[in-house]
Amino acid sequence: MLTITSVHEMQSWVDAQRAAGKRIGLVPTMGYLHAGHLSLVAQAGERSDVVVASIFVNPLQFGANEDLSRYPRNIEGDTRLLDAAGAAVLFLPSVNEMYPEGYQTAVSVDLVTQGLCGASRPTHFRGVTTVVAKLFNMTKPHVAVFGAKDFQQLVAIRRMVADLNFGIEIVGAPIVREADGLAMSSRNAYLSPDERRAALCLSRALAASCHLVEQGERDALRIVGAARRVIAEEPLARIDYVSLVDADNLQQVTELQRPALLALAVGFGKTRLIDNCVLSQRSTVESQQPSEPTENTLDCKLSTVD
Amino acid sequence: MLTITSVHEMQSWVDAQRAAGKRIGLVPTMGYLHAGHLSLVAQAGERSDVVVASIFVNPLQFGANEDLSRYPRNIEGDTRLLDAAGAAVLFLPSVNEMYPEGYQTAVSVDLVTQGLCGASRPTHFRGVTTVVAKLFNMTKPHVAVFGAKDFQQLVAIRRMVADLNFGIEIVGAPIVREADGLAMSSRNAYLSPDERRAALCLSRALAASCHLVEQGERDALRIVGAARRVIAEEPLARIDYVSLVDADNLQQVTELQRPALLALAVGFGKTRLIDNCVLSQRSTVESQQPSEPTENTLDCKLSTVD
Repeated sequence: MLTITSVHEMQSWVDAQRAAGKRIGLVPTMGYLHAGHLSLVAQAGERSDVVVASIFVNPLQFGANEDLSRYPRNIEGDTRLLDAAGAAVLFLPSVNEMYPEGYQTAVSVDLVTQGLCGASRPTHFRGVTTVVAKLFNMTKPHVAVFGAKDFQQLVAIRRMVADLNFGIEIVGAPIVREADGLAMSSRNAYLSPDERRAALCLSRALAASCHLVEQGERDALRIVGAARRVIAEEPLARIDYVSLVDADNLQQVTELQRPALLALAVGFGKTRLIDNCVLSQRSTVESQQPSEPTENTLDCKLSTVD
Repeated sequence: MLTITSVHEMQSWVDAQRAAGKRIGLVPTMGYLHAGHLSLVAQAGERSDVVVASIFVNPLQFGANEDLSRYPRNIEGDTRLLDAAGAAVLFLPSVNEMYPEGYQTAVSVDLVTQGLCGASRPTHFRGVTTVVAKLFNMTKPHVAVFGAKDFQQLVAIRRMVADLNFGIEIVGAPIVREADGLAMSSRNAYLSPDERRAALCLSRALAASCHLVEQGERDALRIVGAARRVIAEEPLARIDYVSLVDADNLQQVTELQRPALLALAVGFGKTRLIDNCVLSQRSTVESQQPSEPTENTLDCKLSTVD
């Protein structure tokens, strides 16, 4: 596996690959990789000839009081994992390479970034779409894979790709969970043993709502309420939001009529975790989003087994 | 010359051209073409194998009270001119093709769009950079040519291309003027005969400042004052701004030390015109911008001959 740190070298490499007729897959990450990230590399590998995995802890997507400075890093370990996963290139630009002096451009997606995490992290998604637009122009992928845990990010990126005519296939990959149901996240490393135990209320909450829907419940307040009650029972948990929204446009729904996203963000000490599952009117184990396949709802069902 | 109206067809066409090893040049316009536009097509032709000229009157770059609805159009005439100028494709998308239902993404460049026209047209440059980013992704050019009359637009686009790593060469083409010195603009068609005559004060104002600099003047207030006085003598002219700014970052300068842009915007009746020239400390006839060649300062000198 090559490690490339310069934008110019990255662009030259992909230009040569494209000239040779290769299909390029991109997996953008912030590093400190876990099995969830590696599943993205595997998915990208199935859909392309060469996979570029990027690691860049993007300052633009962190708020002033967020965890930029303490975000966990392990480039050596990440390099070994990506190499073993079959990535062709680790793209590892510096902050100065990404945002040199005088940098002043932003890409923003409006409506779908307003609610959910956008409400408490007002500049986050602008940072995400900006850096992803840059990564797209640097690595010129045919296909890019993002995890469905960051579901709002996935929706915002799909919207940006459609709106700005990037012509890149965006794949949303299912959430990968620990054996006990906790969605994998680099931020799980922040959790104390007590918080780690408490964080299981997230997948339990999603499972409780799924169960209610399986029994025929369609009312959003009651579906959300079931999840909220599970989390409220956990003293270490502070709810940021629990919301049922349309899976395409992320607008709040009052009744489950078509596939909807049950999404939540909850704080444990200094750590903020998110999780979600897609609920369908017909069946919670349906493994399709309206536009792209995921296994989120299946995950949700699996997570009831803890 | 082909006329293409669909984004998908446009992308397929350029993909085939790129696969065949062709270098693609882009000239984005809003139509109602004049000799200035055709000079852009010629410049693009010199730097590429196939030229795509786009015509799209972009609603996003017009303010609520601006001239979107009455912006002049002449697709038949434009088609003949582009064909004769050697363009390979006229790209002519509809508003709905560019901004379909649900559209919600913007590309914005911050600092260089704040002053000059950005002050009185606060959403204009965001509209410009957004549509140009889209056109870049639709036509995948190696080189794109923009006129130096819209100097701030040119600076904003250069900044966007650098910041978002588009990897496209941006060429700024010199202002083309009528024989009497008026910078060519589709909006000149709005002018009454009296306003058309009055509008000559713009090139005369630039020439007056140029003359002062040739005589050794370096003080921004005095250089700007010379231009203002010429315009103030014209009863039909309403000054929006006359400014001397750094030609790279568009920040106001107090003294002419390195190449600076003398830029102005002036209203005549309902019509707002802009013009500019680049002034250099050493000589006003220097034909170089700091980063890219133009003949703006030469234009300015030429316009004294009216």
